[in-house]
Amino acid sequence: VRDPVTVLAGGLGGSRLADAFVRAVGGERITIVGNVGDDLEILGLHVSPDLDTVLYTLAGLLDEERGWGVSEETYGALGQAGALGGPDWFTLGDRDIGLHLVRTERLRSGEQLSSVTADLARRLTVAAALLPATDDRLRTVIDTDGGELDFQAWFVGRRHRDPVRGVRYTGAESARPAPGVLGALADAGAVVIAPSNPFVSIGPILAVPGIEAALSERRGPVAAVSPLVGGRAIRGPLAGMMETLGHEPTALGVARLYQGLADTFVLDVADTSFAPDVEALGMRAVVCETVMVDPERRADIGRQILEGVRG
Amino acid sequence: VRDPVTVLAGGLGGSRLADAFVRAVGGERITIVGNVGDDLEILGLHVSPDLDTVLYTLAGLLDEERGWGVSEETYGALGQAGALGGPDWFTLGDRDIGLHLVRTERLRSGEQLSSVTADLARRLTVAAALLPATDDRLRTVIDTDGGELDFQAWFVGRRHRDPVRGVRYTGAESARPAPGVLGALADAGAVVIAPSNPFVSIGPILAVPGIEAALSERRGPVAAVSPLVGGRAIRGPLAGMMETLGHEPTALGVARLYQGLADTFVLDVADTSFAPDVEALGMRAVVCETVMVDPERRADIGRQILEGVRG
Repeated sequence: VRDPVTVLAGGLGGSRLADAFVRAVGGERITIVGNVGDDLEILGLHVSPDLDTVLYTLAGLLDEERGWGVSEETYGALGQAGALGGPDWFTLGDRDIGLHLVRTERLRSGEQLSSVTADLARRLTVAAALLPATDDRLRTVIDTDGGELDFQAWFVGRRHRDPVRGVRYTGAESARPAPGVLGALADAGAVVIAPSNPFVSIGPILAVPGIEAALSERRGPVAAVSPLVGGRAIRGPLAGMMETLGHEPTALGVARLYQGLADTFVLDVADTSFAPDVEALGMRAVVCETVMVDPERRADIGRQILEGVRG
Repeated sequence: VRDPVTVLAGGLGGSRLADAFVRAVGGERITIVGNVGDDLEILGLHVSPDLDTVLYTLAGLLDEERGWGVSEETYGALGQAGALGGPDWFTLGDRDIGLHLVRTERLRSGEQLSSVTADLARRLTVAAALLPATDDRLRTVIDTDGGELDFQAWFVGRRHRDPVRGVRYTGAESARPAPGVLGALADAGAVVIAPSNPFVSIGPILAVPGIEAALSERRGPVAAVSPLVGGRAIRGPLAGMMETLGHEPTALGVARLYQGLADTFVLDVADTSFAPDVEALGMRAVVCETVMVDPERRADIGRQILEGVRG
C-alpha cells in the first residue's frame, strides 16, 4: 500500500497501530480518524483521552509503560484541586493539563475541535493527520445493572467493574463528520480499523451518520485488526464486554462484528486457527504479528499489516 | 486591641501584615479585605493573585523566597501550554493552577468569588476571614506613555518598566462590596491599611462604592502602615509610581495620600524623623518595626503594630 492509509482509532490500540504505520511508511501518508465518545469535561477542562493518546504516542510523549498520559509527569495541579474539593478521580498530569487548558480555551472561543487538534499535532511535530470523527458533541454511555453511566464514570470512575449491558452514543444522530473525515475514508488506499474496542472506541466513530456509508461505498480495502489475541485484549475490558453483550470473546467474535463492513480481517499469529472461520464469513483473513506494545517492533509490524491488507 | 481587626490588603505586604496579626492574636480575630483589581483571566483560568498571596501566606504555602506562588512548585502545565501556543507570560505553577481550576469552575457555575474564597480558605485551614473587596468585576488599568495597559500586562508582562501616568479602576462605579466587607469595617476594633501599594492595591479596594464611607463613619481607629521604608518599597514599583504620579516618594508622601482617611500612621523605625510631619497632617504617628520579611519576626511586629494602633 503506497497510497494514503486511514486508520479508525480509539486510544491505546489505535495509537499503536497508527504509530506502526507512521514508522512503516511515514506520517505524511497516514490519517487517523479518532474517537471522541470518551471525551469528558472535568475541572472545567475539555479532555479528549483517545485523541490525546494518539497525539502523545505519535509525538513520542506517551507514558508507554502506563499506556496513557505523558511520560515523566507531575501531579501538582490535580493534587491541589483534590485538596480543595475539586474532582480528582480522573487522573490528569500537569503537562497533560497544559494541553487541556490550551484546547479548552480555544474551544470556548469558538474554534472547532478538529481545527484545534490539527494545530496541536502540528505544534507537537506530528506529521500524520489526526481528525476527530466529529466536531459535534457525541458521548458514549454505558448501560449497567445499576443504570447508565457516562463512559469515563464507568471506565475510570468505577474501573469498568460493572458488567456492560448496552452501549449507546448520545448526540450521534445529529453529529456530522468532522471536515476531512469523509474524504480521508474515500480517498485512502486502505482503511484500517485499529485493534481498538469495537463498542466504545470504533462504535462511536461509526455512529456518526455518513461514516459507515463512506466505508461501504469504498472500492479499496477496508481491513480490521483484531483487538483480541488468544481471547484476551492487550489492555482493557473488551473480552468481558463481548461476553455480557452476547458475543464470543475471541478474534472470531470480533470478526463477526465487522462482517459486512470490513473485507479483510487481520488475526494475530496466536489466532491462526480462526482463519478458516473468518474466511467463511466472507472476509479475507490475514495472519501476522499484531502485538505492538514494544515501540521498536512497530515499524516491522506496521509493514506486515499493510502488506497483508494490500494482499 | 483585643477586638477583631480588619486589614485592607494587597498582595505581599498585605499578606505579611495579615500573617503578623494572625500570629499575634489568632486568625479568628482577623478579617482581610483583599484586592481584586489585579485579577486576570488567562488560559481560561480566573486568577486572583493578591487574594492568593494572602491565602498561601496564611496557609503556610507561599514561596516566601520569591514572594508569590506556592513553594516547591512544578511548571509542567504552563510549559506544555506555552509549547502548544498558549500564553505563558504570566507564571503559574502546577499546584497554583490546581487552585485556579477549582475556583474557575465554581465561578463558572455561578458561585460568587467571596463564597469560593471562603471555602478555599477553610479547606486550607486558614482561620482568618479572607474577603474580596467585591464580587463584581473591577480591574486596575495603568496609564502609560504608550497607552493604557491591564494591570498584569503592565506589572508582569512588561515588568512595570513603563512610567505610570495614571491609574483607574474599571467597573468600580457599579461594584458592590462583597458580603461581610462593610460589617468587617464597621465592627472591627481597628482597621489597618496594610503596607501595600496605595494606587494598585489599596486604591482598588477604596474605589468600591461604600467602602471609603464605611471607613470615615467608624469611631474606632483607622491606621495605615507605611509601605515605604527609608524611601523604598520592600518589594515592587511603588517608589517610582509615587514620583511619576507627583508625590514625594517617602513614608511622609504616603501619609499624605491617606490624610483624612486614616487617623493613625505607622512609620518604620528607619523613618522616625517623619513623625512630626505626619503629626502635622493631623494623624497620630506610631513608630515601630514594620519589616516583616522574616516570618519568625511577624508575631512580634504584629503585636507592636497593634499596640501602637491601640495607642
